[in-house]
Amino acid sequence: MKTYKKIDSPVSIIRRFLEPGPIVLVSSAWKGEMNIMTMGWHMMMMDEPPLVGCFIWDQNHSYEMIKKSRECVINIPTIEIAEKVVKIGNISGRDINKFKEFKLSPLNGEKVKAPLINECFASFECRLIDSSLIKKYSLFVFKVVKAHVATTPKFPKTIHYRGDGLFMLSGPTVGKYRKWFKQEYL
Amino acid sequence: MKTYKKIDSPVSIIRRFLEPGPIVLVSSAWKGEMNIMTMGWHMMMMDEPPLVGCFIWDQNHSYEMIKKSRECVINIPTIEIAEKVVKIGNISGRDINKFKEFKLSPLNGEKVKAPLINECFASFECRLIDSSLIKKYSLFVFKVVKAHVATTPKFPKTIHYRGDGLFMLSGPTVGKYRKWFKQEYL
Repeated sequence: MKTYKKIDSPVSIIRRFLEPGPIVLVSSAWKGEMNIMTMGWHMMMMDEPPLVGCFIWDQNHSYEMIKKSRECVINIPTIEIAEKVVKIGNISGRDINKFKEFKLSPLNGEKVKAPLINECFASFECRLIDSSLIKKYSLFVFKVVKAHVATTPKFPKTIHYRGDGLFMLSGPTVGKYRKWFKQEYL
Repeated sequence: MKTYKKIDSPVSIIRRFLEPGPIVLVSSAWKGEMNIMTMGWHMMMMDEPPLVGCFIWDQNHSYEMIKKSRECVINIPTIEIAEKVVKIGNISGRDINKFKEFKLSPLNGEKVKAPLINECFASFECRLIDSSLIKKYSLFVFKVVKAHVATTPKFPKTIHYRGDGLFMLSGPTVGKYRKWFKQEYL
């Protein structure tokens, strides 16, 4: 499997990858166990500091692991591992070790104990900073504390879930609309 | 300007268009005034009923209009009107009437007073059902009460913001990963 050599990046970079709405892989660790879940419902909630809201269903094995460890890593997979992404989302970590089963390599994070996924294009180390919305909305509010991003390609081919088993693939990134932005809104 | 003939659709369809993360246009009405804002930070928060979380900055003119009317319409623009989408996001409704300025046609909603935008591919009528997170997170929780979606093309070319003036364009929608889904997770 191809792995991506990632470099430290300013945490403000996360918007570039999360705001277009890709499916992500959320990795976690708790009491010697590691797990991965596939997640489609997330949003930027603030710029500085960078906050990300994530819907994590209470039936997911990762739910308790993340709630207890108060940490996770949000990883951006590319089309090359789309099949794994779907399979990871359709089996529970209660039954298997997903890193082993899907031949993905965990890497140590720098600020959290949850592992990075080496085969993903980018990995964002996250700390749970607000658990008050979990009960009502399954909404975890994370602060991104460290960003690791591959330098090439500049914009990887990501996959975006539409429901009903369908994925939208990312198309080209264009800068031709940039001239209509006010400097302060860039 | 091209308009899209939209038909009534089950509200569950919103996921197909919102989950891939496009930039959307949010229209609102309050005390005889109408406005439009460009929004990139949103997420599905529930399936049944369909809830959408939206980050609306308190500096936006639409912020008070939506907070007071407790309604809005989330419209999905396509690449044909990308220039308008950017310009709408870079000027305030305090200064101009955006429907007039950008030659967009408001249509009456069925369940809310906020107008649909006829030049958008889809329009989702929304009611604010939870305002308790607005103060802390600028997070508006809407319930979609009516969905209007064009029937053709099946998957329009949407635009997805990356920050820094860059947009990712949507690529093809593929069904080839569908076979790895469990029936109950589709």
